Amino acid sequence: MVAYLNNQFIEENKAVIGVNDIAIQRGYGMFDYFRTSDYHPLFIDDYLDRFFNSARLLRLKPPHSREKIKTIIDEMIRRNNIADAGFRLLLTGGYSTDNFEMGEPNFIILQQPVSLPSAAQFQKGYSIVLHEFQRDVPYAKSINYLRSIYLLDEIREKKANDVLYHKDNCILELPRANIFIINKDGGVVTPLLNVLPGITRKRVLEIADKVYKVEERNITINELKKATEVFITSTTKRILPVLKIDNKPVGDGKPGLITTALLDLYVEMENSILRKVAYRYQFI
Amino acid sequence: MVAYLNNQFIEENKAVIGVNDIAIQRGYGMFDYFRTSDYHPLFIDDYLDRFFNSARLLRLKPPHSREKIKTIIDEMIRRNNIADAGFRLLLTGGYSTDNFEMGEPNFIILQQPVSLPSAAQFQKGYSIVLHEFQRDVPYAKSINYLRSIYLLDEIREKKANDVLYHKDNCILELPRANIFIINKDGGVVTPLLNVLPGITRKRVLEIADKVYKVEERNITINELKKATEVFITSTTKRILPVLKIDNKPVGDGKPGLITTALLDLYVEMENSILRKVAYRYQFI
Repeated sequence: MVAYLNNQFIEENKAVIGVNDIAIQRGYGMFDYFRTSDYHPLFIDDYLDRFFNSARLLRLKPPHSREKIKTIIDEMIRRNNIADAGFRLLLTGGYSTDNFEMGEPNFIILQQPVSLPSAAQFQKGYSIVLHEFQRDVPYAKSINYLRSIYLLDEIREKKANDVLYHKDNCILELPRANIFIINKDGGVVTPLLNVLPGITRKRVLEIADKVYKVEERNITINELKKATEVFITSTTKRILPVLKIDNKPVGDGKPGLITTALLDLYVEMENSILRKVAYRYQFI
Repeated sequence: MVAYLNNQFIEENKAVIGVNDIAIQRGYGMFDYFRTSDYHPLFIDDYLDRFFNSARLLRLKPPHSREKIKTIIDEMIRRNNIADAGFRLLLTGGYSTDNFEMGEPNFIILQQPVSLPSAAQFQKGYSIVLHEFQRDVPYAKSINYLRSIYLLDEIREKKANDVLYHKDNCILELPRANIFIINKDGGVVTPLLNVLPGITRKRVLEIADKVYKVEERNITINELKKATEVFITSTTKRILPVLKIDNKPVGDGKPGLITTALLDLYVEMENSILRKVAYRYQFI
């Protein structure tokens, strides 16, 4: 697999960085992650918007422009020839002269095969447990996953798939996914503040807004527990129902009608984009 | 400079790790840091105790035993031939198969020259600002310094040297140092809970206990502001007076008598250890 490191394409297993980078010494760095479907990078501009915004928040300077990064991604799609892949854009804190201050960032792009949840996985859904925590610098996609990796043992012991962070009695997000609830009135609600602005979250809000009452606002734990449906959104999972919270079933313990309808609409939106892209390619 | 990476000594500028290590991708890793004085690694067993304890807390497996690590350190002291140096022991989350779960850690030892604060720097002291935050997994020396590096600009804007974290109205620690206060009764007090167990902190408590009333307990912000003296402790700073907090002077704005006395006692303790070591070497 070809990767990209600073100014060159390189075999991924040869992509290395020096141990004085403060990503390694101080956990300081950021990334973004998007998916290609049928060789097309879905919502690439949204992901690059977020990438550059994370860099701004963390005061890191990407070495390339948006257009240059797109060119590199296109070249990797061509070279690695994987239709459906995940792309990871990493920007490290860089080599520090005093082991603390930022330096010139290392910029890395990695590509890997990715598979979306199967229909069976959608039916099985997700089991989550609540955990009080708020990510630091929540609007930036930093590399700080200390808490979530620290919690992996506890998650396994509780036979859950993941944790849902909450703070001040309000739910926030999962370490790598946003959360939505459907309330008794059929409204679609997702937390607004102190969560990562997910790209799948954004698309689901757009889709849902055409059919349902949609709200971005604080959601209390109590409201979560009364929800008729709960689902998560992420780049690699699209929409996945949450069927257990703290080992208690959500609704009747099966994927709900609205969650299922939203996934259908989401997949249709992706397909519509891919048809347009194919149509455009046809005439180039 | 010779470094150590996994099973070999290597030139530091050649010490690299692959970009799939979750230290780089997820900021998951840990370290410890100690000092040599006149070629002697001061309090090495305390630092290695903490190193192995951090590894246990973060479920990382150091590849070598304590004795083997000591042998490697001795060899680096010999090869690099720097009398007064800092040593950084790094243990990364390792190469992950799914970009999230831990793998086999990379183990790195780096040595670098270090200089202690001068008498002038001691007189000048430190200016700190309060900031509400508690480090995640506070008893482990993880590589997570996202918040403190994020705050560097704010610290500079406020013309301060560093931040003092506090939570629930109680002071905790600086990103890289512990804090002590002297109260009106001449008692020496330092926070007990949710702070890194500093090795210099431990030694200062031992020294102070022989002369003063010593307490490890919660300290409110109000108590901090009423303190007659405040100082920080760290491996590279030993004892340094804090002379400004949120731009207001502590006491009369000069290093206090007890802080100065404790530094003298601390330096005398170090010298006493070094004399004993030299004495022992003489007869080997």
